[in-house]
Amino acid sequence: MGLSAKAVEAVLEGVLPRPHGLHARLHEAMRYATFAGGKRLRPFLVEHSARLFGVDPAGALRAAAAIEVLHTYSLVHDDLPCMDDDDLRRGRPTTHIAFDEATAVLAGDALLTIAFEILSHAATHPSAEVRVQLIARLAEAAGHDGMIGGQMIDMQAPRNTFGADEIMLLQRLKTGRLFEFSCEAGAILGQAPQDDRERMRNYAHDMGLVFQITDDLLDVTSTAEKTGKAVGKDQHQGKATLVSIYGVEGARAEAEKLARRAADGLASYGAAAAELRALPLFLLDRDN
Amino acid sequence: MGLSAKAVEAVLEGVLPRPHGLHARLHEAMRYATFAGGKRLRPFLVEHSARLFGVDPAGALRAAAAIEVLHTYSLVHDDLPCMDDDDLRRGRPTTHIAFDEATAVLAGDALLTIAFEILSHAATHPSAEVRVQLIARLAEAAGHDGMIGGQMIDMQAPRNTFGADEIMLLQRLKTGRLFEFSCEAGAILGQAPQDDRERMRNYAHDMGLVFQITDDLLDVTSTAEKTGKAVGKDQHQGKATLVSIYGVEGARAEAEKLARRAADGLASYGAAAAELRALPLFLLDRDN
Repeated sequence: MGLSAKAVEAVLEGVLPRPHGLHARLHEAMRYATFAGGKRLRPFLVEHSARLFGVDPAGALRAAAAIEVLHTYSLVHDDLPCMDDDDLRRGRPTTHIAFDEATAVLAGDALLTIAFEILSHAATHPSAEVRVQLIARLAEAAGHDGMIGGQMIDMQAPRNTFGADEIMLLQRLKTGRLFEFSCEAGAILGQAPQDDRERMRNYAHDMGLVFQITDDLLDVTSTAEKTGKAVGKDQHQGKATLVSIYGVEGARAEAEKLARRAADGLASYGAAAAELRALPLFLLDRDN
Repeated sequence: MGLSAKAVEAVLEGVLPRPHGLHARLHEAMRYATFAGGKRLRPFLVEHSARLFGVDPAGALRAAAAIEVLHTYSLVHDDLPCMDDDDLRRGRPTTHIAFDEATAVLAGDALLTIAFEILSHAATHPSAEVRVQLIARLAEAAGHDGMIGGQMIDMQAPRNTFGADEIMLLQRLKTGRLFEFSCEAGAILGQAPQDDRERMRNYAHDMGLVFQITDDLLDVTSTAEKTGKAVGKDQHQGKATLVSIYGVEGARAEAEKLARRAADGLASYGAAAAELRALPLFLLDRDN
């Protein structure tokens, strides 16, 4: 994973603007938010799914970078005072604390916009048809009935008593859809048939829930020192999570079941899928 | 103009989600912001530039809708308390007042995202190459070195003493680039040669400055009743504008010069360009 992660950083470095002009502050904030020591989980998914379908790694890295900057924008906006009001992320001041709220709103907007710009360039894939498919699917995954819709539901969660179905929907939209797109992107770049695309989405769906459940478990069981962000926050805000509904043991059992199903679903790809298949099991053991 | 404006409303009605699900509030805010009685100036530019190049009107209307929802997102975010802090737009409460700040941030994000989704669909143009060009140019025009860059500069303007060059750059980025794209979009849809594209951009550049100068003049000389928004705000905030630099008479003379140049630049298109050529002169006389 080490080499691949370095390649993603290099592509991000290349696609993001260097600070220049009277609006250099905007470029600085875009970079501050992006180069914050994230796990780069979505780029990992794009790259490794791309390997299953014989995709040019340079194009896959650009798609990975596009998804990562889009993910970064969502964190910048989610952290805003009017949203989750978080001062700390990955152990550092959030963008609106390090800069100011207006700059954070604009940097988020610019990261969202540049994601589509990155995908639109021929360097991502020689076929315009493939690029436009990536763009259409990303816009859906990240849009009003995807990630943003999920965040809207999440903003209302403290005022509601959500059951398991609503929580699952919330997570499916808020984080799941972008995971799904990350895995499907490899298949789109490889112009793979629909059943490959569906298999990648199913894997991502299960893996995404494992990610979310383990995240919720960490919120309950870990410390701020380990996770680099405030913990116990959902509980404190009275937000329902799968952990508050199923309990720590029940949620962990569900995550283990989903992790196995995710790994099994990619068995037909053989050794090339080894790292993708290992990921959900790895997530079960994470401590940050 | 009447028929065309109705057609744009119908397309916007069709592309925006109807409120549904647990996140219906998001869809409601997207619609509230979009159906606010705007002038639809950018759709007008797309449609009329498309006519010069024999473009299918249905595709042009979709491109027009994409640009309009993108413009709408920029207004929603610009009005936020951490930005321009406006409570009133077009005589109605702004989106964060009518809903709340979090919903306004998310509705803006969703409008920006759906703009790219609209352009990505085959209904906009049968050629994926053309669609991906529209997407690339829109992302540039609206992005970190375009509209968002301009807004970043504008946020710093009250704390600076800008001269005419800086103000021109600010306006070029903040409003000019999207006007330029609106006019170029017709040429892109019509797969017109580069010199047509450049001619449309030049027209838009001059027309955009006329729009901005007359807007600044209204801020000084009009009443809130007529414009439907707070006036005298730039002056009050000590923001430099072309009017504060050149004076009311000087700015008006400059706008007249630009309006003539804009109209002259499209003379070679003959009668088909009549409405585009009339627009800058019409803007000189506007009172809202």
